Amino acid sequence: MSEQNQSFILRAIKDVAIGNISKPQITDPHDIIVQIGQTGICGSDVHYWQRGRIGDFVLNSPIVLGHESAGVVTEVGSSVKNLKIGDKVAIEPGVPCRHYTVFAATPPHNGTLSKFYKTASDYCYKLPDHLTLEDGALCEPVAVAVQICKVGNVKAGQTIVVFGCGPIGLLVQSVAKSYAAKKVIGIDLSQSRLDLASSVLNSADGVFMPPPMPKKEDGTSHTTDEESEHSAKVAQLIKDKFDLGQGPEVVIDATGAQSCIQTGVHLCKKGGTYVQAGMGRENVVFPITVACIRDLTIRGSIRYTAGVYPQAVDLVACGKVQPQKLITHRYKFEEAEQAFETVRRGGEDVLKVMIEGVQ
Amino acid sequence: MSEQNQSFILRAIKDVAIGNISKPQITDPHDIIVQIGQTGICGSDVHYWQRGRIGDFVLNSPIVLGHESAGVVTEVGSSVKNLKIGDKVAIEPGVPCRHYTVFAATPPHNGTLSKFYKTASDYCYKLPDHLTLEDGALCEPVAVAVQICKVGNVKAGQTIVVFGCGPIGLLVQSVAKSYAAKKVIGIDLSQSRLDLASSVLNSADGVFMPPPMPKKEDGTSHTTDEESEHSAKVAQLIKDKFDLGQGPEVVIDATGAQSCIQTGVHLCKKGGTYVQAGMGRENVVFPITVACIRDLTIRGSIRYTAGVYPQAVDLVACGKVQPQKLITHRYKFEEAEQAFETVRRGGEDVLKVMIEGVQ
Amino acid sequence: MSEQNQSFILRAIKDVAIGNISKPQITDPHDIIVQIGQTGICGSDVHYWQRGRIGDFVLNSPIVLGHESAGVVTEVGSSVKNLKIGDKVAIEPGVPCRHYTVFAATPPHNGTLSKFYKTASDYCYKLPDHLTLEDGALCEPVAVAVQICKVGNVKAGQTIVVFGCGPIGLLVQSVAKSYAAKKVIGIDLSQSRLDLASSVLNSADGVFMPPPMPKKEDGTSHTTDEESEHSAKVAQLIKDKFDLGQGPEVVIDATGAQSCIQTGVHLCKKGGTYVQAGMGRENVVFPITVACIRDLTIRGSIRYTAGVYPQAVDLVACGKVQPQKLITHRYKFEEAEQAFETVRRGGEDVLKVMIEGVQ
Amino acid sequence: MSEQNQSFILRAIKDVAIGNISKPQITDPHDIIVQIGQTGICGSDVHYWQRGRIGDFVLNSPIVLGHESAGVVTEVGSSVKNLKIGDKVAIEPGVPCRHYTVFAATPPHNGTLSKFYKTASDYCYKLPDHLTLEDGALCEPVAVAVQICKVGNVKAGQTIVVFGCGPIGLLVQSVAKSYAAKKVIGIDLSQSRLDLASSVLNSADGVFMPPPMPKKEDGTSHTTDEESEHSAKVAQLIKDKFDLGQGPEVVIDATGAQSCIQTGVHLCKKGGTYVQAGMGRENVVFPITVACIRDLTIRGSIRYTAGVYPQAVDLVACGKVQPQKLITHRYKFEEAEQAFETVRRGGEDVLKVMIEGVQ
Repeated sequence: MSEQNQSFILRAIKDVAIGNISKPQITDPHDIIVQIGQTGICGSDVHYWQRGRIGDFVLNSPIVLGHESAGVVTEVGSSVKNLKIGDKVAIEPGVPCRHYTVFAATPPHNGTLSKFYKTASDYCYKLPDHLTLEDGALCEPVAVAVQICKVGNVKAGQTIVVFGCGPIGLLVQSVAKSYAAKKVIGIDLSQSRLDLASSVLNSADGVFMPPPMPKKEDGTSHTTDEESEHSAKVAQLIKDKFDLGQGPEVVIDATGAQSCIQTGVHLCKKGGTYVQAGMGRENVVFPITVACIRDLTIRGSIRYTAGVYPQAVDLVACGKVQPQKLITHRYKFEEAEQAFETVRRGGEDVLKVMIEGVQ
Repeated sequence: MSEQNQSFILRAIKDVAIGNISKPQITDPHDIIVQIGQTGICGSDVHYWQRGRIGDFVLNSPIVLGHESAGVVTEVGSSVKNLKIGDKVAIEPGVPCRHYTVFAATPPHNGTLSKFYKTASDYCYKLPDHLTLEDGALCEPVAVAVQICKVGNVKAGQTIVVFGCGPIGLLVQSVAKSYAAKKVIGIDLSQSRLDLASSVLNSADGVFMPPPMPKKEDGTSHTTDEESEHSAKVAQLIKDKFDLGQGPEVVIDATGAQSCIQTGVHLCKKGGTYVQAGMGRENVVFPITVACIRDLTIRGSIRYTAGVYPQAVDLVACGKVQPQKLITHRYKFEEAEQAFETVRRGGEDVLKVMIEGVQ
Repeated sequence: MSEQNQSFILRAIKDVAIGNISKPQITDPHDIIVQIGQTGICGSDVHYWQRGRIGDFVLNSPIVLGHESAGVVTEVGSSVKNLKIGDKVAIEPGVPCRHYTVFAATPPHNGTLSKFYKTASDYCYKLPDHLTLEDGALCEPVAVAVQICKVGNVKAGQTIVVFGCGPIGLLVQSVAKSYAAKKVIGIDLSQSRLDLASSVLNSADGVFMPPPMPKKEDGTSHTTDEESEHSAKVAQLIKDKFDLGQGPEVVIDATGAQSCIQTGVHLCKKGGTYVQAGMGRENVVFPITVACIRDLTIRGSIRYTAGVYPQAVDLVACGKVQPQKLITHRYKFEEAEQAFETVRRGGEDVLKVMIEGVQ
Repeated sequence: MSEQNQSFILRAIKDVAIGNISKPQITDPHDIIVQIGQTGICGSDVHYWQRGRIGDFVLNSPIVLGHESAGVVTEVGSSVKNLKIGDKVAIEPGVPCRHYTVFAATPPHNGTLSKFYKTASDYCYKLPDHLTLEDGALCEPVAVAVQICKVGNVKAGQTIVVFGCGPIGLLVQSVAKSYAAKKVIGIDLSQSRLDLASSVLNSADGVFMPPPMPKKEDGTSHTTDEESEHSAKVAQLIKDKFDLGQGPEVVIDATGAQSCIQTGVHLCKKGGTYVQAGMGRENVVFPITVACIRDLTIRGSIRYTAGVYPQAVDLVACGKVQPQKLITHRYKFEEAEQAFETVRRGGEDVLKVMIEGVQ
């Protein structure tokens, strides 16, 4: 029975269950086995659960969910030099080889919500003693935020405006602040999240709730041009309120909402960078001429590239970024489905939801 | 009467006339006076004529039109070292100082369609003997094309797809080819312009005319989603036809048309660069999620930055870019309004229209 | 007598005196006049005093010395928008135009050690109320340090080793630390300066005093190869002591000493950046093959480029960089020569020497 | 006997012989087996033969030599998609995995001078029909030249000076020219090689033989300062002769000689890039202050990075770079030692030496 490996399995769309898969065996001498201690839930996990696909990745057979994990090393391959049994590690969930990338919980690859998980030792990072396994698991969304700042070329002395104060938006603000950004502004429609940005996480120098677009007297809905005009006005409100002069050097959208995207482009300084970090609608009405005349660089950010994950671990280790403050819910492994349900339901009070490892 | 300075003046919207302005006098010792020999007409000249404004630049009082010019130096200031009387020069029309930029024929600054034009000697480039003043004037759109390739970071060995085979599109193809691009593809809806790209200018390795979107049986117009889907299909057609594998490293849109912008984004390789070079509609429906997942860099290009104009002159001088092949119409100075009318009318047979200087 | 403008004048090599020059008058409407309040002394000031030249800049007629200054605005030109009379300002000493740069106290241009100094309003930065004029003057060496970090592409999460704990070396450490560098190491031969780096300024995470090269038993001096071998050994000592693994991403030399330069190159990580910030000997014996095999980028840094000075002011304003802690000596304007003599004499106890403005 | 695999083996320092090693078997499904058709000899092959080591790579047991090869595919693994049996391929000799790089003929890895060579299919490039296997083998030094131009950020419109007209120097000139460099200048002490640069390869717009340093009247040898001064003079001679104004944007040294390195630094334009491409002495006397004041970027270049090899194949395929013109000697496989001896002996008449595959 020692070979049992309890796991949280997505069997089909909207059908999850705890079950057993075989315990992994080390075959590549650079691999290790980790006993998973903590796992955070990400929107993409819920997306696969509810819809069974993201882009070209389609659920054709059951997979284990989860990819934001940390744990304790229980076995090491014969060539492993950087880790030993008993080490606490943060697990970078994407391991590339020359031909493809194995990314945890992206079909057809199993995720980390198992008792034991096998992965490459050079994609695991030893946690210093003072960090918990929760800290280690949360290095994953911190790495997403570090990548966004890398793509946006965020540098000391700049002003950064971040649309969205969910977990990623808040972490982006915190990472930007740790890079000695001159001013970080957080935008959201939820007052409780703005409060978190300005006080608890201490990541934003200022926060703003955009006013809704006034209803038209004749009751008709707004035209594309009217929406665009409103976005430009909101951009000006933000510039005025925070004394941003010609605008921020970097605008990051972590919402995917059309109105935020439009406002963000109107807000960004000439020659600045706009990063699309949240995926929303397939197509949006986009102020292309403004982006063009302003000589903006528009970039998308997704996952992370080489060197980003260890930097995320460092930022958490030195205390400059404190993702554990985002945790709003904690569940036992047996309650995993309930944890997923909490994220699916969402709401202002739901930020980061954690699942404890199999005991 | 020697102080007369005949000029082509935009007096108000849709109201141009030949008139006299005072002959410029050198006050700054770095300035020179050029007798204008040839001037090309650009879409922006016509835009000011027809609408009186572009963005924030508004015609509030009469200005001289024209900004694509070359001529012969007739006077030099006392500090001028790089030029002497009698030199043929290409004139870079934008002269910056620390506080603003004087750009020819952008209100409130006069353009170059005068007999004599005063400008800064360090923004004029001596033409080698074998170049004509037509060549010199056409260095301006070549500089626009060089800037587009700079913004797109076009490099040797890359594949480049250019939407639009008007003057700018064709010159971009030619400049990209001169940079040892592996493959340059030109896209247009006009067969005669595609022919020009593939044969006369010898700039494109392949050309393509996108098929129109099929009409719907029920006669209703296409939805945004249907249009987007069609754009993705056209992108695949282009990849297949020219064996582009994962797509071109750089896509340049010189049309401003929504369908081209959408197709361009769908076409571009992961990690590639998309440059918006033509200004069209204020807003377009934009495939933001594809751009994001593909990690594209989206840039706008407008005018030119430091170092670009002299490179354009060099490319024309060494024969690698031959803008004179784009000339379809030539007018005397007295026929300037007719020349503008030709550009305004447009059509497949109108590429570059030149106006001779005052005799 | 109100037109008097007391100044500290370098009349010839090793010949300075306080004298009067005419008070500047505003002619360019973008200019302002500043009453100088505090001026720091820089090695280059002393160099002109003692040797009369640096590179191509030669003292051919008397100039006013000083270029690290702050003061209070006493007059503004008619086009000045960003400043008003009474504002405290930091003065960026180099003002470029298209044809040359006017740099304070670089022959033939006068420096700032006058009662009144005229300069361009767009090269002066308003100090927030809580900063002193000493803070404002010290923004100059902070800007030099910011430029060095810019040239070295210092980024969050990196390890930086700085050779030299004089004012520039210490400020570089402090700026790097403010950029969220993972680890900053300071190297010097003076224990008191190392103490400053590790405790007072709080800029270095670790400090190191390189061991001297052991004398040879036969009394002969070391060969070039022996020196180079020693440098490589010192580099390994540093890596071992601070657990730097493959070495720091960025090495900055602010000494100009051959042994530091060699050690720095041996120390730097594959693909890393080495910045030469201090000018020393014309030529040094340089480990070119190591630099080549390691794929290092070697850069020099001098003065500052656009955008750097305002960032320096911001870093001082927010308290992340505290250059006032470097002040070891303060002099009245009448004691200016004594102040210069203190810098010339040097020694462990001399870091930053300030001269008060004319009262 | 079909399993025989005749190879040219370096058994120990200065001890080579033709012998048999076992024929490789495909185990990784992405691998292929190539029957080697042509191999060029590189200086590093000779270096291992004569000295048994380069840097940290030491010959501890026999290896097969050779790494510039092309051949015909004889077997393909089950996952190979890009190639089929019978294809002519250029072989990129360095295949990285996450843990290390296997580089042909770098101890302890075997090189390509065998009848059959196993390698990764994604590091082999199909040659178009009109290219020979000699062309294919010579893609290796072309890739070295492409990497040098990449490291030097060589761009259209620039002036490039290349020290050294051996195979690498000449190919760098040719690659730079194909990138639409404005002017390419080749420097060498051999008239026959300069002739090759200016006429046969058509790569250089100008060539120059530096004058020797005049002997001192008192018969003493030159001091370091005198050598440095001479280097500065030669740099000025080159600028004057070729009308280079402020100097070339990029200087590439492919000699490793101290005098060339010094002249190159003195020659390079402010803000330009100097690339060290040839390895020579461990240490050189280097004009560090000039490099610093001029704000040069100094880079080393070695081997090639991702994307470079296919670009080299393209440049040869389209005829812009013609490495086959460098071939001066051809040998049968049985004459391999004689071929190596020819390269070791060197001389003006020896450029590229080729060895035919086992028949």
